Amino acid sequence: MKSFALRTSRKEEMLDITEAVQRIVDESSIEDGLCCVFVPHTTAAVTINENADPSVKEDILSAATRLVPENWDYKHLEGNAHAHIKASLFGSSVLVPVVRRRLLLGTWQGIFFCEFDGPRSRTVSVKVLKG
Amino acid sequence: MKSFALRTSRKEEMLDITEAVQRIVDESSIEDGLCCVFVPHTTAAVTINENADPSVKEDILSAATRLVPENWDYKHLEGNAHAHIKASLFGSSVLVPVVRRRLLLGTWQGIFFCEFDGPRSRTVSVKVLKG
Amino acid sequence: MKSFALRTSRKEEMLDITEAVQRIVDESSIEDGLCCVFVPHTTAAVTINENADPSVKEDILSAATRLVPENWDYKHLEGNAHAHIKASLFGSSVLVPVVRRRLLLGTWQGIFFCEFDGPRSRTVSVKVLKG
Repeated sequence: MKSFALRTSRKEEMLDITEAVQRIVDESSIEDGLCCVFVPHTTAAVTINENADPSVKEDILSAATRLVPENWDYKHLEGNAHAHIKASLFGSSVLVPVVRRRLLLGTWQGIFFCEFDGPRSRTVSVKVLKG
Repeated sequence: MKSFALRTSRKEEMLDITEAVQRIVDESSIEDGLCCVFVPHTTAAVTINENADPSVKEDILSAATRLVPENWDYKHLEGNAHAHIKASLFGSSVLVPVVRRRLLLGTWQGIFFCEFDGPRSRTVSVKVLKG
Repeated sequence: MKSFALRTSRKEEMLDITEAVQRIVDESSIEDGLCCVFVPHTTAAVTINENADPSVKEDILSAATRLVPENWDYKHLEGNAHAHIKASLFGSSVLVPVVRRRLLLGTWQGIFFCEFDGPRSRTVSVKVLKG
């Protein structure tokens, strides 16, 4: 299991971590298998989506806030209940097949760390399984 | 890693791919393990849900559109921002345990390819890990 | 593959199953790898979120019902269409890295079974893969 740190700079943000994940696949000796990217946080998530037009990220973040507004009457009093809910909707892990040492992503796919309660120092865990 | 192609015929559609995935499990020599179904697209997804009453699929697709309407003021100008958002909400992969060469799905579960921006030619990747 | 049963006592409920999953990791002889928790149901899900303040669970369940109300005009006539939709939004599996026989969860993370159509007798399947 390998990890890397990242620093988010905004309250809500999607950061492309595809290259950092590919680097961990490179460093493993695994030719073929499955790569799991896991986020050990409860107000952040990881997702796969388009890495070409940056406006897709903005639309995803705006839609998330429209779906789960910050100002609903939440019981959790730390002011970040919406971020917890988004974390569960987007999910704490993604899986990508590895073929000949490459993440087998589609043409337009990138792996994104989703910050919903930043800015913060965050960690991403990556496990590559042989198979 | 094995892949298969499929052709969607509507703008939004859920296609039962359980048998196609089971066939790949059959062809692998793996008795027990984990099967990952991965969609290499950013306006489609894969999910597990009821395969008995077809109206469940209709309700899921209608709810997705009600949650994320096509006509919000998106920044992504290709007209399919809603499909990108749905893709991240439903997810790009599912995992199913494999026991004695069978996908260990519950009685009512099927694996569904979710088209959110069709009709299109699509690909599904399947990786079976031994364990 | 190991399974355990649980009984939900309310219509909607999030039950912390972290210890039950860790027990299965303990019983396996696997030092390092990946643990998959899979729910073989179509009106329940599994998610990872905060296990400290119990109000986070309440906020997640309330938000789910606010997003997908029970009384929309669904086609599925069993009265639980909303539960099926929530199941697909939250997902049927989670993955957690295993390091030195421990689930590598973040400080505030717990694994939760999500009941959306209870009370019922339910099953959770756990598969630990070496790697």
